[in-house]
Amino acid sequence: MNAESSPLKVAGREDRKAVEEHLEFAPKFDGDGLIPAVTTDAASGEVLMVAYMNAEAIAKSLEIGEAVYYSRSRQTLWHKGDTSGHTLKIVEMRTDCDQDCLWLKVTPQGPGCCHTGHRSCFYRRLPTAAEFGALTGESALPLVQTEASRAFDPAAVYGK
Amino acid sequence: MNAESSPLKVAGREDRKAVEEHLEFAPKFDGDGLIPAVTTDAASGEVLMVAYMNAEAIAKSLEIGEAVYYSRSRQTLWHKGDTSGHTLKIVEMRTDCDQDCLWLKVTPQGPGCCHTGHRSCFYRRLPTAAEFGALTGESALPLVQTEASRAFDPAAVYGK
Repeated sequence: MNAESSPLKVAGREDRKAVEEHLEFAPKFDGDGLIPAVTTDAASGEVLMVAYMNAEAIAKSLEIGEAVYYSRSRQTLWHKGDTSGHTLKIVEMRTDCDQDCLWLKVTPQGPGCCHTGHRSCFYRRLPTAAEFGALTGESALPLVQTEASRAFDPAAVYGK
Repeated sequence: MNAESSPLKVAGREDRKAVEEHLEFAPKFDGDGLIPAVTTDAASGEVLMVAYMNAEAIAKSLEIGEAVYYSRSRQTLWHKGDTSGHTLKIVEMRTDCDQDCLWLKVTPQGPGCCHTGHRSCFYRRLPTAAEFGALTGESALPLVQTEASRAFDPAAVYGK
């Protein structure tokens, strides 16, 4: 998949200054034609998930105003919410300075974003600097749960 | 660079359920030993930048409580703010369900995060669905500036 095979018209990336300063979309796709997309809750600022898009997924997201990713495991377009009903309504899509990453601010149309049933995929934190300093280093770095309970029952929603 | 050569002790990734549910850090590094790290402003929720970390950068970030990335272009540890003084104080570090991504909530110790002088690297937005629908598709997708002016003068800060 590359930009040429989709309805998405993009600018060239030869001129680094232009990529950073011009008001033309010139995304950097990796060897698999993908670009990472950070998705945050437009209201809370919480990072909900990080997934990947190809040119077709970007065009489709722009067209329907809902997050459409590319599933690397299933190797297909992935309209988030197709199975669960938990679509992500796009408030704004941004790109960064060197245009190798996207940021989607969304309004979730459901209780959660993660296949585990959590609101956000980021439901565990690493130790703080103080906690890290007190570790003996003998076992794997411990994580701490940040969401007390699941936002929905994945078995009921995904039927597995 | 891999986890074994650093002071970071991590768990194995053989058991997918354990990676998702256990309270042990089991990061997925790519072929170059890197994992993407989304960095947001802890106060505003704004995505400031997306960079990469290796095991050593993670350990260093945990140790000093400031964001330390791995620079892919310079192929070296990159303590953000070393040149500019604009360090990023870590409020919280999280990992996601399959532990292939990190999220850092930070308090920036300076006016901006981006080498272009902007507060965030994400200073341009893509068209909305309505704007996209009105495009003729004859030229590259237009971007819209979201930050009216730079937060600092990169020439003065970086000396170039």
